[in-house]
Amino acid sequence: MRNTEAPNPVLVEVLRGKTVESRHAGAIAVADADGRLVLALGDVERPVFPRSAVKAMQAIPLVESGAADAFGLGDEELAVACASHSGDLVHVEAVQSLLAKAGLDESYLACGAHWPVSDKAMRELMRSGRAAQAIHNNCSGKHAGMLAAAVHLGFEPRGYERPEHPLQVLIRGIISDTCGIALARDGIGVDGCSVPTWPLPLAALARGFARLGTGEDLSPARAEAARRLRDACFVKPVLVAGEGRFDTIAMRALAPDLFVKGGAEGVHCAALPGLGLGIALKIDDGAKRGTERALAEVVAALLPRTRGALAEPLEGEIFNWRGTEVGRIVAAPALLDAVAALETAPRHRAGAAG
Amino acid sequence: MRNTEAPNPVLVEVLRGKTVESRHAGAIAVADADGRLVLALGDVERPVFPRSAVKAMQAIPLVESGAADAFGLGDEELAVACASHSGDLVHVEAVQSLLAKAGLDESYLACGAHWPVSDKAMRELMRSGRAAQAIHNNCSGKHAGMLAAAVHLGFEPRGYERPEHPLQVLIRGIISDTCGIALARDGIGVDGCSVPTWPLPLAALARGFARLGTGEDLSPARAEAARRLRDACFVKPVLVAGEGRFDTIAMRALAPDLFVKGGAEGVHCAALPGLGLGIALKIDDGAKRGTERALAEVVAALLPRTRGALAEPLEGEIFNWRGTEVGRIVAAPALLDAVAALETAPRHRAGAAG
Repeated sequence: MRNTEAPNPVLVEVLRGKTVESRHAGAIAVADADGRLVLALGDVERPVFPRSAVKAMQAIPLVESGAADAFGLGDEELAVACASHSGDLVHVEAVQSLLAKAGLDESYLACGAHWPVSDKAMRELMRSGRAAQAIHNNCSGKHAGMLAAAVHLGFEPRGYERPEHPLQVLIRGIISDTCGIALARDGIGVDGCSVPTWPLPLAALARGFARLGTGEDLSPARAEAARRLRDACFVKPVLVAGEGRFDTIAMRALAPDLFVKGGAEGVHCAALPGLGLGIALKIDDGAKRGTERALAEVVAALLPRTRGALAEPLEGEIFNWRGTEVGRIVAAPALLDAVAALETAPRHRAGAAG
Repeated sequence: MRNTEAPNPVLVEVLRGKTVESRHAGAIAVADADGRLVLALGDVERPVFPRSAVKAMQAIPLVESGAADAFGLGDEELAVACASHSGDLVHVEAVQSLLAKAGLDESYLACGAHWPVSDKAMRELMRSGRAAQAIHNNCSGKHAGMLAAAVHLGFEPRGYERPEHPLQVLIRGIISDTCGIALARDGIGVDGCSVPTWPLPLAALARGFARLGTGEDLSPARAEAARRLRDACFVKPVLVAGEGRFDTIAMRALAPDLFVKGGAEGVHCAALPGLGLGIALKIDDGAKRGTERALAEVVAALLPRTRGALAEPLEGEIFNWRGTEVGRIVAAPALLDAVAALETAPRHRAGAAG
């Protein structure tokens, strides 16, 4: 699995003054539910770990099993189950509520502890003299959702994070079915939060997001579970990430035309239900600044009102410690060419957006 | 200045399990004081911003002007003037002392404020309810050194950070002379701490570090200034970065055979005085994890005792939030091939190390 592949194109450049200081290469796939590629830039067949980008797929058992109804979960709890959250009070309370409704507590969380992603929440926790807990981990909502699904399905909750646990076997099947590709067990990785993650090509991931966004090619029960999770994220976008963060800003402005979820190491995925399309991209080096800049450019080509909604990431200004603008994060020529072609390409279902 | 160049090779791979999850491309130059390249991997003629990697060059006027003697500066103050420090108490006190000896105070610092790099110092500051100040900025020592040099040279200290200030003009000339290359004014960038930074090729930067490490091809006064700054860093390596950080660990273990200084956006430079060599590398995407891994590999090829001293960065283990090892940061085939050739290449001055 060493790199003998051709290098991916530079998608994003970081300018200091007028000089290119740094570069982010990567690949982008845009596909419909049948797997037809509307855009394939770079190597979209090279397997990547989807990491947190597929949290909505990992949350499907929570709804499909009937757990969400049995425990009376609301939009906050469903949205936080799909989240990489900031660890603000609103997130912590939603995770606590989800655990409590399933008859569990924080001691069941296997995600490990880290300081809240939110600077404000981190400072408040530090000022209070307390330590970071598992509930502050950006993945605690996903873990609480997995626990609730395990309890409802009659599985032993302890050990829910292990690849051989029946819940993870179920989730593996769901990701595989949704993306239309077998997941090779020998490529398995352990995620930052200790659950398994399986590599799969961006092309398959993009198809999976097209299906997640439209319900096409999914069983009625799975399509309905996907719809409920998506709608919960649309209603409570702050639960999915947090104030000031890309996914929250994007869905607050563009739902229900855009469902979007980032993952670690430069992966970002989106569904455009109205266009019947899914997007999956990875920046090779894992840099979030490259990922968000590239995704904003692709989304803007497909949803013209993105230009206003995502003006800040599209502008890409870089400020130094005194607040002076010192550079910009810009789309590189290969990405500009690709999105220009995308803007003029015929849509599979023109005018269906919304 | 858009990228039309051939892509640089992947130097570092990030494995999750046995699968390559992310990749860092870049370029590395190793040169002697005459500019002879012992290693040129990737495009070493493409200009890069050296950022904080050249702080020792930016500190030369502090010694060469006589300011260091006139103000009675010690090793702590000279080392912190070359530092990207962690903002721990030891750093803050050294910067305060340097400013006080020059008859100035913190209000003169133009670097802007950020929270200390050190987690411990950041938490203590947050717990105290105080805000981050300019003195906590990792560059405050460099700024204090610039201010002291400006005062001693009879320049107006306010405005010392501007490209047209006589101190910055002097520094530009020193970097240009040391690296043996003209610095194009039109490529100028503003650094994160508001001083100017000029792009120059890695090949020139490596030659500059060979000269900085040996004094060769420098005037006697400049060679002596370089020696004093280098020796101060060797005596007080914790002042140059901080506990647990690469440059401190490396110089604590390998001085006087290795002088090393990292900069932002993936630049890292080193001098190996005993071998008469300088190293300059840049990871294209700016990731520190790639930079430190690649530099450790090159240094290990040139100084065999590095394997013990830098065992942790060379091991490159990645742990998740529960402390489980989930992956590794490893040298990619192109880097392994290059360092293997370097290990067997004849030295310009065999046996001169130490």
